[in-house]
Amino acid sequence: MATPLIGIVIGSDSDLSCIRKTCDQLDAFGIPYELQICSAHRTPQAAHDYAAQAETRGLRVIIAAAGLAAHLAGVMASLTPLPVIGIPMAAGPLQGLDALLATVQMPPGTPVGTMAIGEAGAVNAAIYAAAIIGAGDPAVREKLRAYKASLTEKVAEKNRDLAARLKLKKDKA
Amino acid sequence: MATPLIGIVIGSDSDLSCIRKTCDQLDAFGIPYELQICSAHRTPQAAHDYAAQAETRGLRVIIAAAGLAAHLAGVMASLTPLPVIGIPMAAGPLQGLDALLATVQMPPGTPVGTMAIGEAGAVNAAIYAAAIIGAGDPAVREKLRAYKASLTEKVAEKNRDLAARLKLKKDKA
Amino acid sequence: MATPLIGIVIGSDSDLSCIRKTCDQLDAFGIPYELQICSAHRTPQAAHDYAAQAETRGLRVIIAAAGLAAHLAGVMASLTPLPVIGIPMAAGPLQGLDALLATVQMPPGTPVGTMAIGEAGAVNAAIYAAAIIGAGDPAVREKLRAYKASLTEKVAEKNRDLAARLKLKKDKA
Amino acid sequence: MATPLIGIVIGSDSDLSCIRKTCDQLDAFGIPYELQICSAHRTPQAAHDYAAQAETRGLRVIIAAAGLAAHLAGVMASLTPLPVIGIPMAAGPLQGLDALLATVQMPPGTPVGTMAIGEAGAVNAAIYAAAIIGAGDPAVREKLRAYKASLTEKVAEKNRDLAARLKLKKDKA
Amino acid sequence: MATPLIGIVIGSDSDLSCIRKTCDQLDAFGIPYELQICSAHRTPQAAHDYAAQAETRGLRVIIAAAGLAAHLAGVMASLTPLPVIGIPMAAGPLQGLDALLATVQMPPGTPVGTMAIGEAGAVNAAIYAAAIIGAGDPAVREKLRAYKASLTEKVAEKNRDLAARLKLKKDKA
Amino acid sequence: MATPLIGIVIGSDSDLSCIRKTCDQLDAFGIPYELQICSAHRTPQAAHDYAAQAETRGLRVIIAAAGLAAHLAGVMASLTPLPVIGIPMAAGPLQGLDALLATVQMPPGTPVGTMAIGEAGAVNAAIYAAAIIGAGDPAVREKLRAYKASLTEKVAEKNRDLAARLKLKKDKA
Amino acid sequence: MATPLIGIVIGSDSDLSCIRKTCDQLDAFGIPYELQICSAHRTPQAAHDYAAQAETRGLRVIIAAAGLAAHLAGVMASLTPLPVIGIPMAAGPLQGLDALLATVQMPPGTPVGTMAIGEAGAVNAAIYAAAIIGAGDPAVREKLRAYKASLTEKVAEKNRDLAARLKLKKDKA
Amino acid sequence: MATPLIGIVIGSDSDLSCIRKTCDQLDAFGIPYELQICSAHRTPQAAHDYAAQAETRGLRVIIAAAGLAAHLAGVMASLTPLPVIGIPMAAGPLQGLDALLATVQMPPGTPVGTMAIGEAGAVNAAIYAAAIIGAGDPAVREKLRAYKASLTEKVAEKNRDLAARLKLKKDKA
Repeated sequence: MATPLIGIVIGSDSDLSCIRKTCDQLDAFGIPYELQICSAHRTPQAAHDYAAQAETRGLRVIIAAAGLAAHLAGVMASLTPLPVIGIPMAAGPLQGLDALLATVQMPPGTPVGTMAIGEAGAVNAAIYAAAIIGAGDPAVREKLRAYKASLTEKVAEKNRDLAARLKLKKDKA
Repeated sequence: MATPLIGIVIGSDSDLSCIRKTCDQLDAFGIPYELQICSAHRTPQAAHDYAAQAETRGLRVIIAAAGLAAHLAGVMASLTPLPVIGIPMAAGPLQGLDALLATVQMPPGTPVGTMAIGEAGAVNAAIYAAAIIGAGDPAVREKLRAYKASLTEKVAEKNRDLAARLKLKKDKA
Repeated sequence: MATPLIGIVIGSDSDLSCIRKTCDQLDAFGIPYELQICSAHRTPQAAHDYAAQAETRGLRVIIAAAGLAAHLAGVMASLTPLPVIGIPMAAGPLQGLDALLATVQMPPGTPVGTMAIGEAGAVNAAIYAAAIIGAGDPAVREKLRAYKASLTEKVAEKNRDLAARLKLKKDKA
Repeated sequence: MATPLIGIVIGSDSDLSCIRKTCDQLDAFGIPYELQICSAHRTPQAAHDYAAQAETRGLRVIIAAAGLAAHLAGVMASLTPLPVIGIPMAAGPLQGLDALLATVQMPPGTPVGTMAIGEAGAVNAAIYAAAIIGAGDPAVREKLRAYKASLTEKVAEKNRDLAARLKLKKDKA
Repeated sequence: MATPLIGIVIGSDSDLSCIRKTCDQLDAFGIPYELQICSAHRTPQAAHDYAAQAETRGLRVIIAAAGLAAHLAGVMASLTPLPVIGIPMAAGPLQGLDALLATVQMPPGTPVGTMAIGEAGAVNAAIYAAAIIGAGDPAVREKLRAYKASLTEKVAEKNRDLAARLKLKKDKA
Repeated sequence: MATPLIGIVIGSDSDLSCIRKTCDQLDAFGIPYELQICSAHRTPQAAHDYAAQAETRGLRVIIAAAGLAAHLAGVMASLTPLPVIGIPMAAGPLQGLDALLATVQMPPGTPVGTMAIGEAGAVNAAIYAAAIIGAGDPAVREKLRAYKASLTEKVAEKNRDLAARLKLKKDKA
Repeated sequence: MATPLIGIVIGSDSDLSCIRKTCDQLDAFGIPYELQICSAHRTPQAAHDYAAQAETRGLRVIIAAAGLAAHLAGVMASLTPLPVIGIPMAAGPLQGLDALLATVQMPPGTPVGTMAIGEAGAVNAAIYAAAIIGAGDPAVREKLRAYKASLTEKVAEKNRDLAARLKLKKDKA
Repeated sequence: MATPLIGIVIGSDSDLSCIRKTCDQLDAFGIPYELQICSAHRTPQAAHDYAAQAETRGLRVIIAAAGLAAHLAGVMASLTPLPVIGIPMAAGPLQGLDALLATVQMPPGTPVGTMAIGEAGAVNAAIYAAAIIGAGDPAVREKLRAYKASLTEKVAEKNRDLAARLKLKKDKA
């Protein structure tokens, strides 16, 4: 079994359905990861320990997803030299604007690489983690290039579909 | 020397000029306090220890002031049963809107009693800390009643001034 | 019957389903409370009287929940030396951003300890009220410590579940 | 001396320089008014009494200016059948967005006719008060028509100036 | 048939269900009104004419409701000395924040008395129109006093219900 | 003298210093324009007439700049088939967010092509007007191509400067 | 088959249902267009090529619709002298506020004529494109005049309906 | 001369004073970088080429800083498998809120690791770039650990100063 390179922590089990997109994308890249719930506020000691031990446990990137006054990514970043990726969750009435500002507006000294709010951010966190691993690993960069090419191809395919439908409509008219 | 009842922590020494208003107001109430810089991100262990030991050290209320992605009050609240008062600082281009949301939007389980952004919040944190102490101490409530009366009297005084000025202006006209 | 220590006022009966979370949490702590509708705008005299008499009636904390241009917590705070906790309700098209600013941005002299918008704030108001009572009562602090421990334990439990599910998925693959 | 028809209340003496624009415009219309400081939070009883007695004292419109969590106009509106005009002041780091929402988002039953934030609102409050008086008084409507005509004329004048300057510039070129 | 005192204009027929609340409240006060669709952008000439003729047609107050870049109230206010009440509609993805700012932030010289966004504003527009009429008519003020008393009484009634339910729950426990 | 193709209207003479950037850019393109103050609220009839006559007077594009509840561009767009370009001015405490929403959020049927707030928008309005003229005139498109090339060249020049400075700094170190 | 004058690009096929409103309106004007998916981020080379070749392919206006960090319209505008119309899509938790700012706040030199968020903007993009074509083509201006007249007539029709319904209701009462 | 590992691109030379903080911090870490102006809108081809060639030129991380509708980081991310760090600049009346949303809200497939607005983000971009390099290089992680320790020590030092000052003040009193 491969040792995880990416540690994913989520602030609440209500973030699980969203974080699945991160896991699926990492699976697609074949990058081993681990996942656990780890709340900055309900399990502060566990969060502290997780961040402090991440590097020696072999992790190379931490992904932290949390909503509302989202402190989880910041807690991680304060206790590890590893790069931390933050995903602001779209929880509560402000729909993630609070989590975005609480994640991205980190003071000088303790950066969090912040993704888009919610599902877009969940997918992107996996790709960004791969890019970080890839910065030191040409094989992973190759996978990213292939992934980008597949995105381009999917659009081309959809355009062929669209063109066909538009032609059909025009022919009918 | 009186043992501090209120522990004030600020995220950066740039918050000192603002937090002075908190100190002055606590001095006015005669409530002993202590003050130190304690960053959730640059001194996470110190912040952790401060919160964890606050109760046994005799503190009864913690006031935490921070700007940007303000996590300090939340860190405190996650590690102590004492009530934590948060002051969002008006630092950076968003002028404290980030700090406000990062302080007030705490998830269920870990409340922070949040004050207004900046100077208004700094004054009010002292008054609110006094009200918390006063909830268990009639003598402090008495001081708060006197303080409220003084606010009312100051407005009355300003109204006498204003009325005089308006009369003067009218007499001239 | 225990005399209420916490007075809960809500601006409208549409806030009842949300405030139930506050009541349930106070029940869990065994802290006696009372609850009534009390609108700053539709029953100004009742609101005035409630705040003015709260202290002598034996209350130690007031919790005020209101939406839109939420003035209820501010009215309370202007007329009592007791600490007032404000819950901004997520009513109307702005989803509580209006209520948040109308509650938290109190001018110097009259603080309201503001909670998160909506349900998170409703739960937290109860915990914060307990923390305020606890500031003068070690037994209540003990209950809060137990509550915090239960939050930590619940996350641990969920992590055991999650680990089992992830293992199952991996074994299948 | 004419009995005031318009009662102006301001939440703080820091609002005086802004409210002068309201007074000047009412003076220009020749509508008698009175002005005093009256804080919803520091002088709640005075605010209550002012609103409750406004009608019988002969006032026909109340103008209330306040900043931050601006409750003053709402307090007035809750205690009088007279129309209340609210001016949100641009105080503090949020520059009046808080005061705007706290003034305009009144719940059903208690309206406040809200003006623009700051100086624009201060001028407009006077004009709107005149329009309210004018709804029952053709002579005041006549004054408003003349005022509107003067605004139009001032623009025409500025356009003549501008055209002259542009012609001059073109002639030079 | 009574001559309308209040002219209600709405920017689109999609505002009809919301404006019904205004009509119902005016009916309750027995104040005659008229209602029509009148778009600042799709029927600019009709809007212009409506505003220009409102006073001579006997109207005393104009209520204008519109969403998005809501200009209707401003168009009215620019062409009549009558007081104009604006209701920002909660249409489109910004949920009325656009309509609020487009209605309330009127430049100096042309005020619009702005109500809350959406339904709260629709009810309040009727009450505010009544208050404006009432400024010159003690009988209408009397109706407003009765209306306010009815609001107070309804809260009292709901509190009796609530107390009964809470007692029942306590008795069971 | 060339007949103006572009009609520029500004809501207030305080917008003059900003609109100068529009004029300078149109001068640079050699596209004839006219400029006048024309307020949707203070000169509604003039605004109405300007828009209604623009086409027959030979104008091909209208540029409208206004701040606060910026209705000017919308008024224009409601009364002409010509394309209207809106510039939201950064006036008042909300710094143009109000003007942006009041200009861009036009309801279906009456578009305004909206530029950035303030100076960036003032420059861009001229370029966009040129692009509109250019849509039917290859010579103007040629000028725009040259303008774009000049922007690219200016960056290249600044990069040569920057490289020289960085080299100097490195050599010193 | 007519050569397309308008090139419509959308950032994702999830924008198709919204962009249909643009197509329908262009069909109604009889202005030929083409439509394809073209993502600034997933197909950067295709986007680059599309913009660079648009003019020589005979297009006269580009309409670009995208959500979130909407760069598509800006990419187009950076590579063509043709006027670019941007439609911010209401995708994701911020409901298009992100797309609006990412589209409209273009730096000096590269304007995008921005429409309202979502469906209103989709309709308006077609009308605005027609107005741009119309700036050099009186026949298209004539169509726009007819379109505007039809909007006015539709409101008149709805008012006749409304008046009938109101009369019916009154007769019943 | 060391080959640059970090490529810094800025959208405008007005960003130079801010980006100096990034350079200084990279210098402190001893990580070689290069810096140039590269506008997504004024030099689209240069931006395209820079991103497309970055990997083969030996860069491992790209830092992109831009204001307003900040597309630069997104352009980079669309054309390279390298991790891209975005710094939203605080330019213009919205003070970077536009640049933040235009940088962070990237659609699924093309992530940008976004930093805080302005100077805080400029410092943090350097630290985050180091962390990315460090993910594959223990020596760089060691430097980051030392940097973090120095931040902690600086706070300790400031606390000693503060304690001394507070003691002095107390002794005087």
